[in-house]
Formats: sequence, structure tokens, C-alpha cells
Amino acid sequence: MNFEMISAAAKRVDGHVRRTPLLSSPALDDIAGKRILVKAECLQHTGSFKYRGGWSAVSALDEATRNRGVIAFSSGNHAQGIAAAAHAFGIPAVIVMPSDAPTLKIEGTKRLGGEVVLYDRGARECRETIGTNIAKERGLTLIKPYDEPQVIAGQGTCGLEIAEQAAALGVSEADVLVCCGGGGFTSGVALALAEKAPKMRVHPAEPVGYDDVARSLKSGKAERNAVEAGGLCDAILTPMPGEITFPIMSRLCGPGLVASEDEALRAMGLAFQHLKVVAEPGGAIALACALFHADDVDSDTIIATISGGNVDPSIFARALETL
Amino acid sequence: MNFEMISAAAKRVDGHVRRTPLLSSPALDDIAGKRILVKAECLQHTGSFKYRGGWSAVSALDEATRNRGVIAFSSGNHAQGIAAAAHAFGIPAVIVMPSDAPTLKIEGTKRLGGEVVLYDRGARECRETIGTNIAKERGLTLIKPYDEPQVIAGQGTCGLEIAEQAAALGVSEADVLVCCGGGGFTSGVALALAEKAPKMRVHPAEPVGYDDVARSLKSGKAERNAVEAGGLCDAILTPMPGEITFPIMSRLCGPGLVASEDEALRAMGLAFQHLKVVAEPGGAIALACALFHADDVDSDTIIATISGGNVDPSIFARALETL
Repeated sequence: MNFEMISAAAKRVDGHVRRTPLLSSPALDDIAGKRILVKAECLQHTGSFKYRGGWSAVSALDEATRNRGVIAFSSGNHAQGIAAAAHAFGIPAVIVMPSDAPTLKIEGTKRLGGEVVLYDRGARECRETIGTNIAKERGLTLIKPYDEPQVIAGQGTCGLEIAEQAAALGVSEADVLVCCGGGGFTSGVALALAEKAPKMRVHPAEPVGYDDVARSLKSGKAERNAVEAGGLCDAILTPMPGEITFPIMSRLCGPGLVASEDEALRAMGLAFQHLKVVAEPGGAIALACALFHADDVDSDTIIATISGGNVDPSIFARALETL
Repeated sequence: MNFEMISAAAKRVDGHVRRTPLLSSPALDDIAGKRILVKAECLQHTGSFKYRGGWSAVSALDEATRNRGVIAFSSGNHAQGIAAAAHAFGIPAVIVMPSDAPTLKIEGTKRLGGEVVLYDRGARECRETIGTNIAKERGLTLIKPYDEPQVIAGQGTCGLEIAEQAAALGVSEADVLVCCGGGGFTSGVALALAEKAPKMRVHPAEPVGYDDVARSLKSGKAERNAVEAGGLCDAILTPMPGEITFPIMSRLCGPGLVASEDEALRAMGLAFQHLKVVAEPGGAIALACALFHADDVDSDTIIATISGGNVDPSIFARALETL
């Protein structure tokens, strides 16, 4: 896993992945007491950065393998990213989702051309077994959500854009906060910036109670979350850092930052009011860290990713109530 | 008023005005039954396209005149556009607003560095008299919201971007729907596209009951709205087409389209769900026409502007309830 894979991914995704804007607002600067730049990946196709990794991974397969199709386990943004990328290539995509996943996400994945296979999370059916069996039967390639080099390379293309867009604003030094689940986005962006903007320092941003990466970076070994699901920030909840992503983050990232769910909701409200974009709770956690914990990092400029915007209206209404 | 003024404005605003993305979603295409591309000017600085015209007009003044300052009459987006542009140049901006304007907009204008002068709309005080007196006393230049060539030139820079971004997607033929109040945005975009994408046809989009421009284009003479204020689409309510803008629209635009306030709210909800952007009611009227009246125009592709996103949370909550 190296920078060259990100460069190669950038060539493959060019013209397919959307170049998302780097937004700002004087009101957010006032709240944080620092300059805040926001990389709005919620405006990416399928509403999250996951489309980058999806396109990168699907496009990296040799044609014969790709034509047999791909499979992914996901209840959320990775599912939609893979389904949409596969659809663009005209190949089959099977998405294995828990049967209690939000209808919106199941329907969204189907609309993007994905074949949804549901499994029963309550009965502790093993999704890996289900998925592996389908993959074998049909010759599908499994695309993991983060511990997969071509996925990390795709997410890294967002880091290339951050470096270019910040440079256009005269910014070369900054702390870069990345919403972090398994670490695919964080490690991809960190690899890209280590090469293209070496004065920038990447930090994973996580919700309180799900700060496995922050604790792992501190202790030097992979730590688990006590609770593995149920939070508002569902998009970025994973049990522990990835096997490929953790060594990259250990080498390149500064300490992890943490914000509460309430702060995430407030950040969603402020993104609505001042940036005019829709963030989901997990997607707003880096912005929440930037706005409410700006002193946890050193630079005068903070670049925060909004990683996704796939949020139910009822949860968004709660964010509006914080205004 | 000609294309060269738009080219000149584009040079002046370069690096200051944000290049907003041209968004899309398969779900919106399905609803309309056509390909829908959305120019998201809600992501512009100050949350609306008005920043383009503001910057263009302020930057076009000679330095001595500019340094004395500018003045504008507006309760909304034009106020913020002018205040922010003036602030960027470090010059004074006086904004004359009705005393019953939403606190959010008054505060927003002040935050952007504007000096707000309130007048009493109920008592039928003449804002023109108030404004003209202040302008004379202090040597300020009045910048009108739409009947001002350098403002129209600035709004036209959005048309240049539409032509380039559509071409990058292989689109040269389209109907282009522009949210229309006095016609500054519509005529600027029409002038730009007549030169840069001559197979595109611009149409003003207005709310039911405030369709002065559509009726004027039909009758061939400037028609008035029966009611002049009070609608949900406050950002684009004007009594009649402008003296400069109407002849341009008559020459270059196709028939006007109209959508209801309920349709505008539904379009806001769909923009939230599928594009992850925040539209205000007036800013969603072109998208509402595209989604729910696609057959009123001929092309297979419709490009709709979202002109602004400055909306109160309580109104946005109503849009969420349509989902």
C-alpha cells in the first residue's frame, strides 16, 4: 500500500468521481477560533466518500474477474458506493445487508442496481459465511470496506484534492480531521497528504465511546470498542482498526480526536446553516471536533472532512433543533 | 449589457467566487423522467448566487468611488452578497432592510460586516428616500439587486460555469431553468449561454401567483404581480421584471415555468435526500419545475439552478416532512 497506488487510482476515477468542493464560512471560523475548511464528501456520488473506494476497487479488477461481479457486506455507505460503481461498469453487485437495515438504505442500494441479500442479525447468522458461499457459487470478488488496498487508494484521491484545493487558498500547513471508522478514509488521506502536503497532519475523528482508533494510536496496539453498534454515528462504527489501515495511521497520523453525539448533531445544524450541506452524524464528527475541540490540535487552520450525508429526515430534524 | 461584460466580470471574480458543483442523482432522473443536472449555487459564499453580482459590481467601481463605500436595499440574499463583497474589499457597506426582516438575515448581514439601517415597512416609509439620503450624505454608491449591468454580468459567470461543466459531461443541448425574481440571474445566465452553449435554452422559473416574468414573456410587455409579498419563496418575489433584464429575457429566453410552494418544499426535501444540499423555497423553484413539470420543456436534459440555501430551520423542517 503506497502513494503510487493512489496516483493510479486517481487516473482511473478521473471523470467518474466528483471533485467535491472545499467549503468555508466566517461563522464557523468564529465558532472554532481558527480557520476552518470543510471537504464536503457528502456531495460525492451516492452521498459519501465510499464511492471513491468503490470505483477504485472495481476498476482495478482485471476485466474477466470484474465481469463476474462483486460482493460486499455493508448496511450503509460502502454498499451504495460498490453498487453504484458496479452499475457504472454494467456488472453484477451483491450486497449482503442485515435485515434490520433502514429501508431507505436497502431501497437506495437496490435503486443503484445492487442485488440485496438480507441476513438476520438477531439470530447471529454469520454474514461472512453467507457472503463467502454466494461469492464462491457465482465467482464474485469480495470488496472489503476498508482493509483493501485498492479501496484505501480510492479514498486517498480525496487527499489529493484536499492538497490541491488548500494550496489554491494558500494553505500548506493544517491539521486535517478525518471521520474514522475502520480507517480506510483516514489512512488513504494520510498517505496522499504525506506526499503532497507534508506539513499537514492527519488525525482520525471518532465519536465518544467508539474511539478505538484514538486509543489504539495512543497505546500502540489495536484496541477494541466495548460496544460495537447502536450509536447515532452508525456510518463510522467499527469494532477495531483495520489490519492494513492501523500500521499506516500509526506511522502517519497525529493523535485521534473525539466528539460527542450531541456535538455531532450541533455540527450538522451548523453545516446546514452556514455551508448549506447535509451531513449525517458520523459524517459530521470531524467537523464537530474542529468546531468544539479546535484547541486539541496545533495549527491555525483545520481541514475537516464531512464524510457522508445519508441521514434519515427524523435525525436531521433533531440537528435543526440545536440551532 | 453584453457578453463581454460577463467575460470581464469572470476575470474579476476569479479566485473569489466559488465554482459551485453541477450535481446529479439517478433518483431525480427517475422522478423527472429526464436527465437532471443541478447547479448548486446554494454552495456559493453567503449561500446564494448574489455574491457573484455583489463581487462583480463592487470590483467594477473605480477605486476612489469604491473606497467611499456602497449601499443596497435588501432584506435577503442581495444584502449578504453586497456586505460580504464589500467586506472583502475592506470598504463600508450600508444595507437598508425592513425592520421586520428575519433576525437571522439581519444578524447574518451584520456578521458579514454590513451596517444595517432598518426602516419601518408597516408605516410605508419609503426605503428609496432613506437610502438616497444616506448615499448622498456619505458618498455611497447604490448597487441595485438586478437592474444593474455589473450585477447581471456577475450572475452571468454562473452561466459560463454551467456551459463548461455540462460540456465536460457531454451535454450541449438542454433546457436551463433559472430561479427568477427581477431577472438578474436569468438574464445573466441567458447572455452567457447564448454565447457559450447556443443549443441551450434558458427559462425563468417562478412560484405560482408570482409569475410576472412568465406572463410578461407571454404578453410581450412587463406585467405586474397582483400580490407583491408574503409568499414562502421570499428570495425571488419582485413586483415586475426589470427594465434592463426584461428585454434580455424577451430576446433570449423560452417560456417561463411555474411551480407551487408545495412543489418547492418537496423539491427541497428531494435535494436534501439525493443531493445533500440545502435549498431555500425560492431557490428550489427551478428544481421543482424540473422534477414535476419536466414535460413543459422539450430537451431530454434539464439543468436547474438552486439559487440559494438561506432558509429558516422551521421551514426546512416542513420540507423534511414531505419525504
